Amino acid sequence: MSSPAITIGPRVRKSPFYNATIEAGAQAFTIYNHMFMPTSYGDTTAEYWAIVEGVSLWDVAAERQVEIIGPDALALTQLLTPRDIDKCPINRARYVVFVDENGGIVNDAVMYRHAENHFWLSPGDGDVLLWAKGVAAQSGLDVTVREPDASPLQLQGPLAPRVAQKLFGDLATELGYYQFCHTSLEGIPVVLSRTGWSGELGYEIILKDGSKGTALWDLCMAAGAEFNIQAACPSLARSMEGALLSYCSDITLNDSPFTIGMDRLLDIDKPHDYVGKAALQAIAKTGPERRLVGANFGGEPVTPNQHFMDVKFGDDVIGHVTRYCWSPRLEHNIALINVPTAFAATGTTLSLDAGDGWREAEVVDIPWVPAEKIIPAFD
Amino acid sequence: MSSPAITIGPRVRKSPFYNATIEAGAQAFTIYNHMFMPTSYGDTTAEYWAIVEGVSLWDVAAERQVEIIGPDALALTQLLTPRDIDKCPINRARYVVFVDENGGIVNDAVMYRHAENHFWLSPGDGDVLLWAKGVAAQSGLDVTVREPDASPLQLQGPLAPRVAQKLFGDLATELGYYQFCHTSLEGIPVVLSRTGWSGELGYEIILKDGSKGTALWDLCMAAGAEFNIQAACPSLARSMEGALLSYCSDITLNDSPFTIGMDRLLDIDKPHDYVGKAALQAIAKTGPERRLVGANFGGEPVTPNQHFMDVKFGDDVIGHVTRYCWSPRLEHNIALINVPTAFAATGTTLSLDAGDGWREAEVVDIPWVPAEKIIPAFD
Repeated sequence: MSSPAITIGPRVRKSPFYNATIEAGAQAFTIYNHMFMPTSYGDTTAEYWAIVEGVSLWDVAAERQVEIIGPDALALTQLLTPRDIDKCPINRARYVVFVDENGGIVNDAVMYRHAENHFWLSPGDGDVLLWAKGVAAQSGLDVTVREPDASPLQLQGPLAPRVAQKLFGDLATELGYYQFCHTSLEGIPVVLSRTGWSGELGYEIILKDGSKGTALWDLCMAAGAEFNIQAACPSLARSMEGALLSYCSDITLNDSPFTIGMDRLLDIDKPHDYVGKAALQAIAKTGPERRLVGANFGGEPVTPNQHFMDVKFGDDVIGHVTRYCWSPRLEHNIALINVPTAFAATGTTLSLDAGDGWREAEVVDIPWVPAEKIIPAFD
Repeated sequence: MSSPAITIGPRVRKSPFYNATIEAGAQAFTIYNHMFMPTSYGDTTAEYWAIVEGVSLWDVAAERQVEIIGPDALALTQLLTPRDIDKCPINRARYVVFVDENGGIVNDAVMYRHAENHFWLSPGDGDVLLWAKGVAAQSGLDVTVREPDASPLQLQGPLAPRVAQKLFGDLATELGYYQFCHTSLEGIPVVLSRTGWSGELGYEIILKDGSKGTALWDLCMAAGAEFNIQAACPSLARSMEGALLSYCSDITLNDSPFTIGMDRLLDIDKPHDYVGKAALQAIAKTGPERRLVGANFGGEPVTPNQHFMDVKFGDDVIGHVTRYCWSPRLEHNIALINVPTAFAATGTTLSLDAGDGWREAEVVDIPWVPAEKIIPAFD
């Protein structure tokens, strides 16, 4: 059958960039944080190459921000994450996870620190707004948790700094990795941030006035025209190459930060209380029962999986594929798989259900392609 | 343009009934509680008449249940809702709302009481799981909050009791409105409940073994064949006729239970503490600033709105349409509109953006069609 249609109705919000993306030829969508998000302009391989070799603009307004503000905003944010965010300077971002009482991951997010007691969380798909409000409700803290008027675009690819410099001047090229600032573009208020979900050089341009979506989109596309900017979507292949994980597939509530190898981004023994502290301290002692690891496999380009696929060791199903795809530049198939720790060592040979049969796969170190962080000099 | 496609990938779960609904001809989907949910088999008017005059089977597994269990399950559930649920007997269901610290609605749900300290919440679209876990996290209560293996089908329409009697015997017809029981069907464990989202007679059949989706679907369709059962989806027109509200469109975090006229289902002064108590007690004194009310309007059958549409009084935009559609049996257009209390009185004349121009609309009492609750005797 052909792909089913997506029903467009008022229960799900349209992004401020929705009309612009339809105009640009968006052909498929998903729903993410109660908002439509484009997933394809018809040729995902072309989008991949634009991201990897050129520059691309993505509507990711569905990264709905969660704002934590007020006298106890720092205290609540500390309570929400095992990372010690006292260490995060203002106008810097950090990758954080939130865990429940069992140490299971509620979501992951880029955290922006706007002021001593003012944060935005930019989470994956899931109502982190409700999680944060729920934790706050019985905490006795004096804090407001709400959704701000904030809708990210991503400008991603090796030529992204060129486009950003045209738009924002040297501000864009002087901004360090995971730094951000509040600025504006022809009167449109935005946050410009050296973050993104491509592993390539890039920016998030976070619109702070939801009525100006088409205007901001058009400014970015116009500035990028000389660099052949392409409207694109978050790339399955590029995100996998960079081991950029996706909440609800690679990461679920059943996984602890140790499962996904985020140990280095935790301060589990920080002096502050946080939800899940005892659970994470216990897991740290024993090690996680399961691991999310990479695997390479051969054969024809695999059709990306629609749901979790079985992973076997010998004849026994021991785990599952969270995502797999063909990597156009590595020219082989790559997978993220969730397996017991005993089968997670690099070099382990497993087999996986490739949709059209079982294929042998070998556990490998990830990421396949490390993140680009340094903007080279250009004229 | 034609409808955009929906991307099927592992970030969003497939319902246990997914394969059966594809087989039955599902042509459009939405995403609801991180799960694909069919929205059309190609002719929503035919589906409407099957629901209103015959019998229909819906995949609403995306009504993901939230289980609250443990020594303090009653205490946590009391903390979550302004309704006094001490009054709810075991094996009965209640409609409940959850509110935040401002009295804004976090979600609404059918609450099933399985035992003194064992509840399921069957919410609208939103991570009530995270809300409940978040509130529990700092509450000091001894309780587990989790998602059970529980996936509802709805069997809805005036002939639903006939089909249910074939499947379950007299158990089905003896069950009172908002009563339920645990039972099984050819070894498949289910909850059978006299609840649903059609306003017609009907049941929810909640599958308790996610591996048996196709088997349960096929049993229901086979039993319904002699009654010409149709695969169908939640009906925009029928839900609106019954003023069955939808979270994220008719109800949002900006609305209090008073806004949506749920006053009679609240016990705001109950002796137990609950999140939002002070806020609701304050709103009860002043009355809500806005109201969700019904409106009739004429002209050609309106195209259902894709997003909120403006409502005017004179030349001023004073509110918005949450949903509107043509009612096939009332033979006029109906709308749910959110307006300031001053414009909410029955008989008020307003105008609304019908997509192809402004049309005059008159505020009316809702529901347009009251719920059917009594199963008539049949042979």
